[in-house]
Amino acid sequence: MPDELEILRRLLPGLPAGSGVALGPGDDCAALEISGGKLLLAAVDQLVGGVHYLPESTSPERAGAKLMKRNLSDIAAMGGIPRWALLAVAFEGRSADWVTAFCRGAAAAGTRYGVAVVGGDLARLAGKGEAASLTILGEVAAKEMVCRSGACPGDLVYVTGAIGNSFLSEHHLDFEPRLAEGRFLAANGFATAMLDVSDGLLLDAERLAAASGADITIDAAAVPLRAGAALPGALGDGEDYELLFTVRGEEAERLEREWPKELAPIRRIGFVAAGEGRLRGEYGRKGYEH
Amino acid sequence: MPDELEILRRLLPGLPAGSGVALGPGDDCAALEISGGKLLLAAVDQLVGGVHYLPESTSPERAGAKLMKRNLSDIAAMGGIPRWALLAVAFEGRSADWVTAFCRGAAAAGTRYGVAVVGGDLARLAGKGEAASLTILGEVAAKEMVCRSGACPGDLVYVTGAIGNSFLSEHHLDFEPRLAEGRFLAANGFATAMLDVSDGLLLDAERLAAASGADITIDAAAVPLRAGAALPGALGDGEDYELLFTVRGEEAERLEREWPKELAPIRRIGFVAAGEGRLRGEYGRKGYEH
Repeated sequence: MPDELEILRRLLPGLPAGSGVALGPGDDCAALEISGGKLLLAAVDQLVGGVHYLPESTSPERAGAKLMKRNLSDIAAMGGIPRWALLAVAFEGRSADWVTAFCRGAAAAGTRYGVAVVGGDLARLAGKGEAASLTILGEVAAKEMVCRSGACPGDLVYVTGAIGNSFLSEHHLDFEPRLAEGRFLAANGFATAMLDVSDGLLLDAERLAAASGADITIDAAAVPLRAGAALPGALGDGEDYELLFTVRGEEAERLEREWPKELAPIRRIGFVAAGEGRLRGEYGRKGYEH
Repeated sequence: MPDELEILRRLLPGLPAGSGVALGPGDDCAALEISGGKLLLAAVDQLVGGVHYLPESTSPERAGAKLMKRNLSDIAAMGGIPRWALLAVAFEGRSADWVTAFCRGAAAAGTRYGVAVVGGDLARLAGKGEAASLTILGEVAAKEMVCRSGACPGDLVYVTGAIGNSFLSEHHLDFEPRLAEGRFLAANGFATAMLDVSDGLLLDAERLAAASGADITIDAAAVPLRAGAALPGALGDGEDYELLFTVRGEEAERLEREWPKELAPIRRIGFVAAGEGRLRGEYGRKGYEH
């Protein structure tokens, strides 16, 4: 199945382009031209019982919150401000209480970040289980938006927070999306490229390199690890929901000096060099698809 | 399950309101304040194999197109112009070709109406089957938007096209969303209230009555029936994707005279009277939830 998903992910970007699309599929969000120099950010992500959480032991509130926060993390990765969400749930064999708690968990997590759930749909699933999707809408000034394609040779690579052991530590349920960190980086023009680390640090670093058309080298020893995480596995575990971003070499000192203490810490973990858009170095396994 | 879905649909509107929300959950779309007097319309709808189509005999292209068109119908019901879509598919036991064809079917249907698929997500489902959701984004001038809550005593009730026998005739797969009809009604200020008929004419008429706080009476004998449809069943079958709308009594003659011949025909099928927001009359069964 991982291979099949990867095949599909390669096939599907060949969709017709549309009018008013400032940034199409392939980044954390699409960016749509509305007016007044603002872009509408839009992304969709799913959460499936038995795939993204343990359906028997995870409370519906926490599962719903995870779905919202995964999407908020995509807005954070563009430097945007989240505004609205639409939630769809297909289920079979769950009580009305369970589904209500799931939706309320998603809505409550949104409320904490200023996001309103403005639409939704409930449907039956043919077999037992549940699958939910959430579309997040946000906005960003066109000149502040940070894509994954802007890294240049000479840039340095940073990451917020810590990496690895997300599943056992339950970070994958309890993480805070890095919205304030993304906004600081975007509003102050520090980040040249950015994405959120969801499928493993190395795989996501490789995606940033490919989108930017420059090579990235990660210093594995410099990567901040979550308690209980160990190299090299931590670099491929995924579900970190941290921001991976690049900064011009000459701005690095100022970034580190001006970084607000109340935000998650940042760590310099690599550099960008001229190349064909590859991740350089050998790190063992690279990440996973889910 | 129908009862459970109905319970949930009643529970879930009690979500916190958000800023910039001109129209929240409960209509065909939410309307979000962007700028320049325009509203962003947003809606999400799902399509589940074995629930909304026959997974063994429906081609993935047609199923994907149906998902897109269901959502386009929601934009039509607001009098809006569709712009962008985001597509999420969870599946297990389907080939990459099948999923690709499903997504391409959705995208191709969107292209025909000027809609670009700007984002997506693919995920595994824990059990065999597939569930897809699509979020549609559109726009409408604030002064042109038509909600389901605007019907007043003295208004007349109209419907586009024909009703009933949607499943056997495969209208539920092959319908054309009534975008041009919705735009004509909105741009010319004819419709005081509107929704799309997806869960059965009577159930949707009742929803329009409830939202408007006025009573509706349908003349069942006047309802245009699709070939093979019979009363009273046709009034509850659902999946018609026609527009049900109300027009001020004094505007009815002008509407019928000015209605463009190239659009789907309209038929006067009832009237609005002062009341508590109920559907008056006895019609047998009222619709279904799916």
